[in-house]
Amino acid sequence: MSKTVDLNADMGESFGPWTMGDDLALLDVISSANIACGFHAGDPDVMAKTMRAANRRDVGIGAHPGFADLQGFGRQRMSLPAETLANMVQYQLGAALAVARANDAKVRHLKLHGAMANLAAEDKAMALTCYQAALAVDPDIIIMVLAGTAQQAAVHELGCHAACEIFADRAYNDDATLVDRKLPGAVIHDPELAGRRMVEMLQVGAIITESGKHIPTRIDTICLHGDTPEAVDIAKSTRRALQANGISVEQFSGTRI
Amino acid sequence: MSKTVDLNADMGESFGPWTMGDDLALLDVISSANIACGFHAGDPDVMAKTMRAANRRDVGIGAHPGFADLQGFGRQRMSLPAETLANMVQYQLGAALAVARANDAKVRHLKLHGAMANLAAEDKAMALTCYQAALAVDPDIIIMVLAGTAQQAAVHELGCHAACEIFADRAYNDDATLVDRKLPGAVIHDPELAGRRMVEMLQVGAIITESGKHIPTRIDTICLHGDTPEAVDIAKSTRRALQANGISVEQFSGTRI
Amino acid sequence: MSKTVDLNADMGESFGPWTMGDDLALLDVISSANIACGFHAGDPDVMAKTMRAANRRDVGIGAHPGFADLQGFGRQRMSLPAETLANMVQYQLGAALAVARANDAKVRHLKLHGAMANLAAEDKAMALTCYQAALAVDPDIIIMVLAGTAQQAAVHELGCHAACEIFADRAYNDDATLVDRKLPGAVIHDPELAGRRMVEMLQVGAIITESGKHIPTRIDTICLHGDTPEAVDIAKSTRRALQANGISVEQFSGTRI
Amino acid sequence: MSKTVDLNADMGESFGPWTMGDDLALLDVISSANIACGFHAGDPDVMAKTMRAANRRDVGIGAHPGFADLQGFGRQRMSLPAETLANMVQYQLGAALAVARANDAKVRHLKLHGAMANLAAEDKAMALTCYQAALAVDPDIIIMVLAGTAQQAAVHELGCHAACEIFADRAYNDDATLVDRKLPGAVIHDPELAGRRMVEMLQVGAIITESGKHIPTRIDTICLHGDTPEAVDIAKSTRRALQANGISVEQFSGTRI
Repeated sequence: MSKTVDLNADMGESFGPWTMGDDLALLDVISSANIACGFHAGDPDVMAKTMRAANRRDVGIGAHPGFADLQGFGRQRMSLPAETLANMVQYQLGAALAVARANDAKVRHLKLHGAMANLAAEDKAMALTCYQAALAVDPDIIIMVLAGTAQQAAVHELGCHAACEIFADRAYNDDATLVDRKLPGAVIHDPELAGRRMVEMLQVGAIITESGKHIPTRIDTICLHGDTPEAVDIAKSTRRALQANGISVEQFSGTRI
Repeated sequence: MSKTVDLNADMGESFGPWTMGDDLALLDVISSANIACGFHAGDPDVMAKTMRAANRRDVGIGAHPGFADLQGFGRQRMSLPAETLANMVQYQLGAALAVARANDAKVRHLKLHGAMANLAAEDKAMALTCYQAALAVDPDIIIMVLAGTAQQAAVHELGCHAACEIFADRAYNDDATLVDRKLPGAVIHDPELAGRRMVEMLQVGAIITESGKHIPTRIDTICLHGDTPEAVDIAKSTRRALQANGISVEQFSGTRI
Repeated sequence: MSKTVDLNADMGESFGPWTMGDDLALLDVISSANIACGFHAGDPDVMAKTMRAANRRDVGIGAHPGFADLQGFGRQRMSLPAETLANMVQYQLGAALAVARANDAKVRHLKLHGAMANLAAEDKAMALTCYQAALAVDPDIIIMVLAGTAQQAAVHELGCHAACEIFADRAYNDDATLVDRKLPGAVIHDPELAGRRMVEMLQVGAIITESGKHIPTRIDTICLHGDTPEAVDIAKSTRRALQANGISVEQFSGTRI
Repeated sequence: MSKTVDLNADMGESFGPWTMGDDLALLDVISSANIACGFHAGDPDVMAKTMRAANRRDVGIGAHPGFADLQGFGRQRMSLPAETLANMVQYQLGAALAVARANDAKVRHLKLHGAMANLAAEDKAMALTCYQAALAVDPDIIIMVLAGTAQQAAVHELGCHAACEIFADRAYNDDATLVDRKLPGAVIHDPELAGRRMVEMLQVGAIITESGKHIPTRIDTICLHGDTPEAVDIAKSTRRALQANGISVEQFSGTRI
């Protein structure tokens, strides 16, 4: 089994006068931060501030592009031409690279947000479009993918640096998709349970579904959420459980998979 | 006198379903293109398309950041904290760098747009903020400045690569500012006259004001407008007049001034 | 057969510095104008100016709400909760009512735009949501619907004032939907043909499909497009053809259907 | 002295996924709510929800238009043509009227937001433009103005229904302007003090400035803030202090002043 794992969370999702999440508290727990790039959340000031805060704590920085849908927080599914999608990813990644550079920081990875991520998890062609677009800007960037989905198939085909993630607080169906949020048990609110599940999945090297099925997979990083009341507790509990079981929290290396 | 001069124009100012200017016609006349970065005009698709078109014609590409004011086309004066201004310039420049890179193109220069440019022409501290922000992202970028203004003083102080521009179609006051658009004669609509003036200013190495005064200045590039009915005619006429007088059109080199 | 028919067109689709269509030319031909409400196109200035121009020519004014998608011109299909959809329609209709009132004009009708209209043409529940939302603001407003679609079924169920439209320049499938724009013959570019088709459909009181099938329907208004090069020619030709065949152009009355 | 006074607060300032202020707690204290109209904050869903909540508590509803500046929360000063300003106010007021009507509520008053309000407090011509625009849509609307400013002069000139407000938590200069937020003592954080000051000002019928000067004025309503940590406490304390001194909290009547 893997002796180390990365912990990641979305952040930098404030906008103008509005605040979202407790980024500073989460930054003390995680090792990689997915920072919104201004299309679905974030603005240049929020990006700069969040990158500096991550950098000071040696938390790895990721660009987290989404659809241009501020009011809907990038959760509205959009059907866009491949070229438009590619330009949109490149624009946001470039903005993140520049803000990072100007703040003595570095963008290590890229993770798609919201509906853009969900669509790419179902559709390998779309995932390829987004990832190739990012690699055309930075061939060394590490692509963070949802383990067991079309996103993972895409990075495998591209042979690029990648990191596979599983969710700390979401139950899985037998096909590696997430249980619908509307169903009971879909979201795990108990910090103890969240931590225990993660240790177990890392120990067996597989996603363990709601029915108990094991889906073998690489696990490089665990996604923690930042926008629920119990978010920081689940993050801390997961970290403690990992360490108590001899698994240290470290940034993923971005192996080609 | 200078034997060569650059011709520049703003472009990539279409947005979504809306078209502005005849970029393709202008690209056949100019040597440098200032491409909008999505805040006051342009979108990722327009940026990519315009950069590819410029690149195919060996026209130099510049990032043209402005205030986040789509409806007002970046012409609304805004009073922003220096840090916000810096982040805003870096975000837009980074987006331009990435879209260029993904399209095998290169961003050579940066020119401020609209109210951002006007404020920086009056206020050296603001010009310094914007230019230092850009140089923190790309130390080799050439800053295009309005000759004789606080913008020029700022690049002189920074010692960075720079190019000084004068306007083909605007009359000058004796302090090197532009005559107010509302006054008669402020905008030159006659292509012949525009070309003749430019040759004369280049020959004497000075801005020649409405009153006939000469303000000595470097002249690296001539700004042509793209959004008036006579724009392409003025551009062509200026180019012809220059060449007829032994001045060839070439990209500026970006000397430190 | 009907001795009168209304001619309608979308307009007020400029935004900030960008112009779209030749509204003034079209306003001399049509009897009803569908004016964008600022979400997919238009802004308060464009709305006011377009309403005044329509009012001066006794052209009936309609609110033309769409999805909040400026860059995509409201053509991106969005899946929104019914309540969000209702609030969105009410917000835009209210804005239109106020701008009209302040300019001594009156909003007579409402027509959905783009993807919002397409979805409502396929889904009666969605059409009901949008139309009930509008009627809650103005119970006397006339709802303009695509003849033969779920939109028509919805106004029939509501028993509200309504007007049924057919397209001058689009070919129809046998189920009353429009032939896909990508297929040959889907869009009619010949002004003579467009006019002749409209006369024929009005004479038989039916949509005549590409295969020659007749789908009987009320026809209260003919939709003319404003955004193609031949738009004004098709509009004029249609009007001439109608008048040459004894059909006068008049605003629809908004019968309950 | 006045035996009754209104308490007002800005609300409905959430946007999409972002929440601002504790509207429900404040609604139990105030008698009038100034609801954002979507340009600087708020969206159609937030407007509808906030209006319904106000209506259930018999809190008077006001439209609270601002500049189109979401990221800057309408605090950026903009110089706009009078006609643009008028159209912008009408658009937002109309949207509010429609959302209210559809939710069985009524818009009683209008109050300008942020930089739009500050500019109108200094410039009577601008205040007149905004208020005449609103009155052209609804001649009976009550205009809420900052006591002692150009806003008050404007409603006096118009002879329209109006209500004069003073601030519970802000110190005043001797010219009735607010003490700059950056100076010590400019913002009152002590709930007891805030309540005591309001009672005193109402008893003497004047703004009492920092230096102790009395500026006689009508006082119809007291502005409470909703976006500071102590906001709800200051609101409750002010209400208690008023009632303990025999001043009851009631909606303003909107006398012509």
